[in-house]
Amino acid sequence: MTYCVGLLLDAGMVLLSDTRTNAGLDNISTYKKMFTFEQPGERAIVIMTAGSLSVTQTAIAQLQEMIDDPDASGERSIMLAPTMLKVAEIIGRTLSHVRQDIDSKMEMAKVSTSASMIVAGQRVDGEMRMFLIYPEGNFIEATPDTPFLQIGEHKYGKPILDRVVRPSTTLEDARKAVLLSMDSTLRSNLSVGMPLDMAVIHKNDLRVTETRRIEPHDPEFTKMSEAWSDVLRDGFSAIKI
Amino acid sequence: MTYCVGLLLDAGMVLLSDTRTNAGLDNISTYKKMFTFEQPGERAIVIMTAGSLSVTQTAIAQLQEMIDDPDASGERSIMLAPTMLKVAEIIGRTLSHVRQDIDSKMEMAKVSTSASMIVAGQRVDGEMRMFLIYPEGNFIEATPDTPFLQIGEHKYGKPILDRVVRPSTTLEDARKAVLLSMDSTLRSNLSVGMPLDMAVIHKNDLRVTETRRIEPHDPEFTKMSEAWSDVLRDGFSAIKI
Repeated sequence: MTYCVGLLLDAGMVLLSDTRTNAGLDNISTYKKMFTFEQPGERAIVIMTAGSLSVTQTAIAQLQEMIDDPDASGERSIMLAPTMLKVAEIIGRTLSHVRQDIDSKMEMAKVSTSASMIVAGQRVDGEMRMFLIYPEGNFIEATPDTPFLQIGEHKYGKPILDRVVRPSTTLEDARKAVLLSMDSTLRSNLSVGMPLDMAVIHKNDLRVTETRRIEPHDPEFTKMSEAWSDVLRDGFSAIKI
Repeated sequence: MTYCVGLLLDAGMVLLSDTRTNAGLDNISTYKKMFTFEQPGERAIVIMTAGSLSVTQTAIAQLQEMIDDPDASGERSIMLAPTMLKVAEIIGRTLSHVRQDIDSKMEMAKVSTSASMIVAGQRVDGEMRMFLIYPEGNFIEATPDTPFLQIGEHKYGKPILDRVVRPSTTLEDARKAVLLSMDSTLRSNLSVGMPLDMAVIHKNDLRVTETRRIEPHDPEFTKMSEAWSDVLRDGFSAIKI
């Protein structure tokens, strides 16, 4: 499985993904699930993927091909699309086509494929927007009421987000929130694993302001994880019932 | 859905279930999912249920019928079975039969039913034991390595259990742990709802030592829930990254 989470805040967007891919428990690999597309000053887009690797890799490759096409148009290239809504539509259509195509090949094996994506971005003169794209190509959008989106193994890490994430959350707190949400997921589910990829897009920066790969045993992440364990353990002891 | 959790500790067993049942989002009811069977001094058994209400109600009714049968034997009555393992076998067989029977009736509607149970108990001269019974009637048992079992919406409330529950955990801490695990689940998933039922069986007490129904707005639970929110919020603020 996978865990990816994206926060859409007043100050910007924060995205975090794991890298574990598995085909059965005895076939585990590391694959990047975060893809950035940017033309600084004009637009910045980050896509995170969950689900069948064969579907998501092909979909990302097709999106890249449509960007590189010398005859690319705003109808097919996410780097030329006039709005983020249009970007979400192109990604949705691509994902849905690839999934249907692979699904039809898998039919004989009675296996079905699925994949979903989170896409976050901003283009010049537009707002920051973040979408969750379903396997069928339809999508929902993050809003001030629900300023975060998750794909993959989302349940373990949801309680902390429910409690602390608001549109007014600072980017520093947002980094902490997604890392702690991931930390809970890593501890409780083997199919989600290090290293992690993080991206931050400041509002109106029109580029991916910050990217970071967090390797296993990263001292900062380990320290934060241990500090959070202490908070939970000490807080747990202190509560009276 | 449902959330039920059981802890098997050195000092005893702690069980907690919610009571929300829904057939679609527009048909929500409250049903007890915790059932106690005891003959004080001889044996105490608690069963918690998750899944199709028609399956679990029928299975519990059949278990009761087999107990009340004047010709009851240790082969069929969980109150006469010579060991807790035998109790788990009787429950597993009953659950599996009921489920298959109802499933065959549902086949035409292309709907399938499922249900699982946690059974915890001790009989005189035996050890405390706790089992998770699958829809097919097979089961797994809680052990010192994994001293808790969950059914239903188990993911939201697993991180706190992973962190704090050990066989040596006191019964007081165990009560807190299951309530906080439930609190996270209640906050993140609408299909799990108050009131809650809690049961505690002290080791070698051979009766259900303590039962408690926790109603919505229970002042003690509310206070604990708020205190935990404060711990998380304050701890979150204090952590540096």
